Amino acid sequence: MADSGSCGRGDLARLAPVPALFPSQAQRARWDDSLTRTLLATRRRVSAGAVTPTLDLAAFRRELATCNFATPRSAEDLFAWVVAQLERGITHMTHPCYFGLFNPAPTYPAQAADRIVSAFNPQLATSTTSPAAVEIEAHTIRAVACRAGLPEGSAGHFTTGGAEANYTALICALTQAHSDFAKRGARAFAGDPVFYVSRESHLAWVKIAHQAGIGRDAVRMIGTDGTGRMDTTAMAEAIVTDRADGRVPAMVVATAGTTNAGMVDPLRECSAIASEAGAWFHVDAAWGGGLIASDALRSALDGLELADSITIDAHKWFATTMGCGMFLTRWPDLLTTAFRVSADYMPSNTAGVDPYVTSVQWSRRFLGLRLFMSLAVAGWPGHARHVERAVALAARLEGALRDRGWAIANRSPMAVVCAKPPPGSTEIRTLVGRVLASGAAWVSLAMFEQRPVVRACVTNGETGLDEIAGLVDALDGARH
Amino acid sequence: MADSGSCGRGDLARLAPVPALFPSQAQRARWDDSLTRTLLATRRRVSAGAVTPTLDLAAFRRELATCNFATPRSAEDLFAWVVAQLERGITHMTHPCYFGLFNPAPTYPAQAADRIVSAFNPQLATSTTSPAAVEIEAHTIRAVACRAGLPEGSAGHFTTGGAEANYTALICALTQAHSDFAKRGARAFAGDPVFYVSRESHLAWVKIAHQAGIGRDAVRMIGTDGTGRMDTTAMAEAIVTDRADGRVPAMVVATAGTTNAGMVDPLRECSAIASEAGAWFHVDAAWGGGLIASDALRSALDGLELADSITIDAHKWFATTMGCGMFLTRWPDLLTTAFRVSADYMPSNTAGVDPYVTSVQWSRRFLGLRLFMSLAVAGWPGHARHVERAVALAARLEGALRDRGWAIANRSPMAVVCAKPPPGSTEIRTLVGRVLASGAAWVSLAMFEQRPVVRACVTNGETGLDEIAGLVDALDGARH
Repeated sequence: MADSGSCGRGDLARLAPVPALFPSQAQRARWDDSLTRTLLATRRRVSAGAVTPTLDLAAFRRELATCNFATPRSAEDLFAWVVAQLERGITHMTHPCYFGLFNPAPTYPAQAADRIVSAFNPQLATSTTSPAAVEIEAHTIRAVACRAGLPEGSAGHFTTGGAEANYTALICALTQAHSDFAKRGARAFAGDPVFYVSRESHLAWVKIAHQAGIGRDAVRMIGTDGTGRMDTTAMAEAIVTDRADGRVPAMVVATAGTTNAGMVDPLRECSAIASEAGAWFHVDAAWGGGLIASDALRSALDGLELADSITIDAHKWFATTMGCGMFLTRWPDLLTTAFRVSADYMPSNTAGVDPYVTSVQWSRRFLGLRLFMSLAVAGWPGHARHVERAVALAARLEGALRDRGWAIANRSPMAVVCAKPPPGSTEIRTLVGRVLASGAAWVSLAMFEQRPVVRACVTNGETGLDEIAGLVDALDGARH
Repeated sequence: MADSGSCGRGDLARLAPVPALFPSQAQRARWDDSLTRTLLATRRRVSAGAVTPTLDLAAFRRELATCNFATPRSAEDLFAWVVAQLERGITHMTHPCYFGLFNPAPTYPAQAADRIVSAFNPQLATSTTSPAAVEIEAHTIRAVACRAGLPEGSAGHFTTGGAEANYTALICALTQAHSDFAKRGARAFAGDPVFYVSRESHLAWVKIAHQAGIGRDAVRMIGTDGTGRMDTTAMAEAIVTDRADGRVPAMVVATAGTTNAGMVDPLRECSAIASEAGAWFHVDAAWGGGLIASDALRSALDGLELADSITIDAHKWFATTMGCGMFLTRWPDLLTTAFRVSADYMPSNTAGVDPYVTSVQWSRRFLGLRLFMSLAVAGWPGHARHVERAVALAARLEGALRDRGWAIANRSPMAVVCAKPPPGSTEIRTLVGRVLASGAAWVSLAMFEQRPVVRACVTNGETGLDEIAGLVDALDGARH
């Protein structure tokens, strides 16, 4: 196929690295330094500018359409162009007036971890390939599982987010519920397998049921008790009815920190009902799980330690960069059953250790370093302060809104406020639209117990009293 | 719950940001500069050192066990410690003597993209939240789909890797195969749904079938033709038999670039058989898809353009950092059917546009910027050179090994060589073990047509003739 002799000059040039992709060390150093300066300057401007996007989307699309990758662009120009587009083209999670869904302003240690991971680019499928990285992830997961109250020997892994972790819980529950699910799938069950969530749970469950091959009808949406928490009596009745109708209750899901209002389902009751029904008990603490860091606040999660499995997102209240969730379970052997395979070409095959045989993904990024480095640098005490200050600031927001005649709809132990303006105000959708259009703050329209509310969540670790005061002014000023 | 009046001093301190997590701009600048210097120096040392891990795992575990996150650690010390552990604790994808599975040495533009994404940390669930980022991803996906030969109007999205993309294909195939799969799952089918892959396909398919609720038995492993390619006659026969037995053939998968040997299944025949059977036709081109960049080499993928859907990993031959795959399809409406949901609390709900209603994930990292920036800076021509030089280097490796009496088992159009040492050599497992133990190069033991081979793949864009010569010496020297 080829000669192995000496090469001509053109031939050697043909074999040289592509410099735009693999620059010299000196060039890397210049670009790295330039990026450092650009990103820091942008960060300062972002904090002082609009929270919401200001770019002309149609114009941006036209500009992008000319970028057909036929001709290489200068790297410096491209880096600057990309940063400029993002500066005006996204909602800024790093802005202290972002009071939004739980996307964080990332911690510096998490950003540093991302950079280190990009530089080494380890493959985390197997322990033999990347022993140090696999150990650091496993150590971090064990520490979080322990802090969540799960027994020694509990384990788990990092996921891309809460949706993957919740999906993993369902696969574990189904694999546990019928010994033939692994081989034969949902058709192995005598009746339709179903699971229970409250109607305030995360709607990703509907996609998850579809993806897991049990169908969207398998999601049994249970009503709430008027305070945004699962009506456990209704759930117990639904289980009885489903069983009488031939269905197979496979899992009970309690939400610890609902998306709309930060409410916590009654964890102990849910656990007891699941246990009675012989069903897997999963707690979706994607956001609320951050409270485990705080000795003062963690009692809000009482009963979490009874879970068969738990979802906690590092990229929510632990404030890592996006794409970092966790699945924790007291039954690690079940992960090996659910995700086992045997591949000749893999460097090792140590069931129970290698991430590729104990989780959904195969080739994997070293996700866990972000949380490891954040925890190492700030410790549990630093993360406790991070969640406690957010809860204290949310309490300030509640107080200030009440002083202006607003009503608070929810009573969450977390840093989220669902507020209703005084009678006579404009409708809430319009009010929220005005705040967003001003660029002064990001809040959202949400539904709490089927009524619209303004939802404001303290997610950014640099939000302070000035921003709370500014938000109150913005909200109150948008009433008319 | 809280007073909104003035604060005491202790109270204000309690509300201040946690400095270890959210340092000042000046502190960030110092740490960024320090990381730049540390990572560049480490990069130089890594290239000159052992490819394989050298750390004492037991000692590392003991050290890690003392890190209980009770007491914060100095950030500088921690960053240095982490980098040092990774320097000796992983197989180095960035080492030019890494001839391994398709994990790349990442391009500089991809690393820069990761850094920019970490700084802004956009949420890519919806287009309203991050319009610029969602547009950049969609533009890049369209460009890749077009280059792969899919018709105008094709779309898709970025995934964490090939496993998620392949899983997405199966969910699309099942959703297409029965109108009630979405609601009722696998139990909606009259018989067991099944799909077809060659026995040389990626074994993640077994996990995927389990996870999709159709069970591991649904994976019909078809034999190969003696050259590592799907035996299409055997597949056509299996489909007839399965249908006669009441099963439902839902998908045909062709692999374009097998993991063991870089072989390409007969794409046109597979497409015709799938079409005849009314089954979805998916091409897993996770690695081999990189060839679309090269006008000279892309003919190896002839028939790719007939696929209903395609997997291509950006984190393989496009050399982005890990955790970046792609799912491409000519039927984007089906994605909307498979992954739709409607959530009150989401900022927008534009089916067909928002990533959270057209893909597996919900909260998402801005994955696609890495490929966008690599493509923008090097263009298709730069990526063409990147794959062409790898194929040319693999040809050199083949020639040099043949000159030393080795046999080449595979005839791949890609940059992977499956080699057998001359008669009288030590067994291949031992030979590979010796090379790895030396730290001089990373190669793997693989099975080709059920016989062991040494598998060497040119994945690193900075590998050159010197490293090829070194590998030949290392392999030949390990024979006895």
